[in-house]
Amino acid sequence: MPSIQLKTPSASYEIVIASGLVKTLPARLKKLKAGKPFRTFLVTSPEIWGLWGKQVIAAFGKESPTVLFLPAGETHKRLRTLESLLEQMAAAGADRDALLVAFGGGVVGDVTGFLAAIYMRGVAYVQVPTTLLAQVDSSIGGKTGVNLAAGKNLVGSFHHPLAVLADTDLLNTLPAAELRAGLQESIKAGIIRDPKLFGYLENNADAVLGRDAKALTHVVAASVRVKADVVANDERESGLRMILNYGHTLGHAIEAATGYKQLLHGEAVGWGSIAATRLGLMRGMIGKDEADRIIRLILRYGPLRSFKATAARLVDLTSSDKKKRSGTLSFVLPAKIGEAVIVRDVTREEMLAVAEWTLELVREQGAAAKQKQKRK
Amino acid sequence: MPSIQLKTPSASYEIVIASGLVKTLPARLKKLKAGKPFRTFLVTSPEIWGLWGKQVIAAFGKESPTVLFLPAGETHKRLRTLESLLEQMAAAGADRDALLVAFGGGVVGDVTGFLAAIYMRGVAYVQVPTTLLAQVDSSIGGKTGVNLAAGKNLVGSFHHPLAVLADTDLLNTLPAAELRAGLQESIKAGIIRDPKLFGYLENNADAVLGRDAKALTHVVAASVRVKADVVANDERESGLRMILNYGHTLGHAIEAATGYKQLLHGEAVGWGSIAATRLGLMRGMIGKDEADRIIRLILRYGPLRSFKATAARLVDLTSSDKKKRSGTLSFVLPAKIGEAVIVRDVTREEMLAVAEWTLELVREQGAAAKQKQKRK
Repeated sequence: MPSIQLKTPSASYEIVIASGLVKTLPARLKKLKAGKPFRTFLVTSPEIWGLWGKQVIAAFGKESPTVLFLPAGETHKRLRTLESLLEQMAAAGADRDALLVAFGGGVVGDVTGFLAAIYMRGVAYVQVPTTLLAQVDSSIGGKTGVNLAAGKNLVGSFHHPLAVLADTDLLNTLPAAELRAGLQESIKAGIIRDPKLFGYLENNADAVLGRDAKALTHVVAASVRVKADVVANDERESGLRMILNYGHTLGHAIEAATGYKQLLHGEAVGWGSIAATRLGLMRGMIGKDEADRIIRLILRYGPLRSFKATAARLVDLTSSDKKKRSGTLSFVLPAKIGEAVIVRDVTREEMLAVAEWTLELVREQGAAAKQKQKRK
Repeated sequence: MPSIQLKTPSASYEIVIASGLVKTLPARLKKLKAGKPFRTFLVTSPEIWGLWGKQVIAAFGKESPTVLFLPAGETHKRLRTLESLLEQMAAAGADRDALLVAFGGGVVGDVTGFLAAIYMRGVAYVQVPTTLLAQVDSSIGGKTGVNLAAGKNLVGSFHHPLAVLADTDLLNTLPAAELRAGLQESIKAGIIRDPKLFGYLENNADAVLGRDAKALTHVVAASVRVKADVVANDERESGLRMILNYGHTLGHAIEAATGYKQLLHGEAVGWGSIAATRLGLMRGMIGKDEADRIIRLILRYGPLRSFKATAARLVDLTSSDKKKRSGTLSFVLPAKIGEAVIVRDVTREEMLAVAEWTLELVREQGAAAKQKQKRK
């Protein structure tokens, strides 16, 4: 089974990608705690628990964990939800030997990781990501946190899990739209760092989208390798790690403009990646053929839902994004398939032009999707 | 001027104890940031700002910091207050180059440190403690956090400041009760680690309580040295650092039993230290003469306010204290003046006996204080 060791200055841990990990979860947790006493607190959403709760409980047998629920969705990724979970842990008598398990998608992982980072100034946790997005991206790298009214992920900690256990069986219950949205992060991984992964996604789209176990495991493992490699080289996002934000600058603006409800994160990142590619092309940083291949692959793994926004609003929202450092807006652009560069001199005019072009494509794709539905 | 370098595995920084530090604060911040651009956000309470705001603003001149207010008192040491400060920072456009300054007592320091720990997953901060308690104890060691309904300091981070600047001038506006309460932490430092400091406090009580500048500077610096030395040897409180909790196990229970409002933290610690000393005596771990000297010194720096509680309630509250590890209650007891040991086998019966004895002393002291007031 694919296993990747992520080694940073502050932590070293294993990311396992395989089928059947849920069944062996209790034994794996014990091994991770290496004989030390601990009490398991499993954080999940009611939806995921409805699908997988029985199997988890069966795996734990008599030593059932304390289960804490987090309502699904980005709107619950806030400090007030966190406070409720913290109070529940305290009421259940959790001490520093508590071991948290994040059993869910990106929101569950981010909130649980932050919960672990700050409960009694830090307890251990393990990531068991249940969505593709969480398996290939959000569960890896130790970024945890919640949103403010003022913006996404503005509050949080760097706090690494003891391990990431990505059970590919969990992807079988994932809605198709979430699978496709998660694959946008794999495409991103290919664009910025792994031309082979990019090629694999081009050549095996049917198998991947059809959830062929071998194809999915390959894509998840390759995506994880890209992320782990980048994080290992720049744990605290002082340089290289910024390339993981490819597609996210405009992506976050799109999410903010649509109230974080209309599009899945991966869909917004898909649109943002298209915009970044277009900007790279406008600047002559990437050739027309490669830019076309990128945009074609992103749309192949669509449809990306359409949305309404003005270019000015999107550009305004990008400058309030937290990737900004002391007034300069950093932007990750493609140099070629498999290589990204960070530029810091993008002007408002360029941004507006790219946003206009992208919004036009959004309208076209939206109209095409409607036509397609009518024909059905 | 006394300056102590605190070196831990994760950070190394200076603690300066001197008069006139506020006047040179802007220059010191610039030096700490070593030429890197930054924006200053000063967090303070309206009370402290009323006393010192003008001088701070005068020191900053044209480059005035953004001032954020935290209402005074333990009741505001909560996640909702933190969220309001986080949103204010975001609204003011703070990015990762923000430099926070905690200008206040323990609550301001703990909340500001935690704010710095989690805003954008961590920005820098400097402690400028304005109370004696904050100067000798809470500003040092990187513990930051807020309370839950379920208990004090149950949420937080280890996040070290860039420096601690303890301006002894700030102690001139401190209410007498707060000065005395803060000195209980200095007495604690003497008991657990520094017999010379203990002796100095015995022999110079009038000068210290009379705020003689030389005496106060001596006591603050010696207390800081004890804390810095312990923290340097055990940053994450896995062993030695627990001795700093001397007097705090029952102290926290007393604070919880009285709603965190009736006694100052240092007063509760004073009573807790007396209880720990009594327990040490009951167990034959410390001799009668030394135990008497400890209790006498604690009361000399009183009066410690009296309060009402039952022994059973106090003992119940100690077992919900977070110093508990997997069911075993740790207790720090004096072996002699200048040396503390951690014991893990204290029974409920012993706790009850010690709590009863302490509550009897609380009643006696309360009655004596009333008599004294009548006579006036």
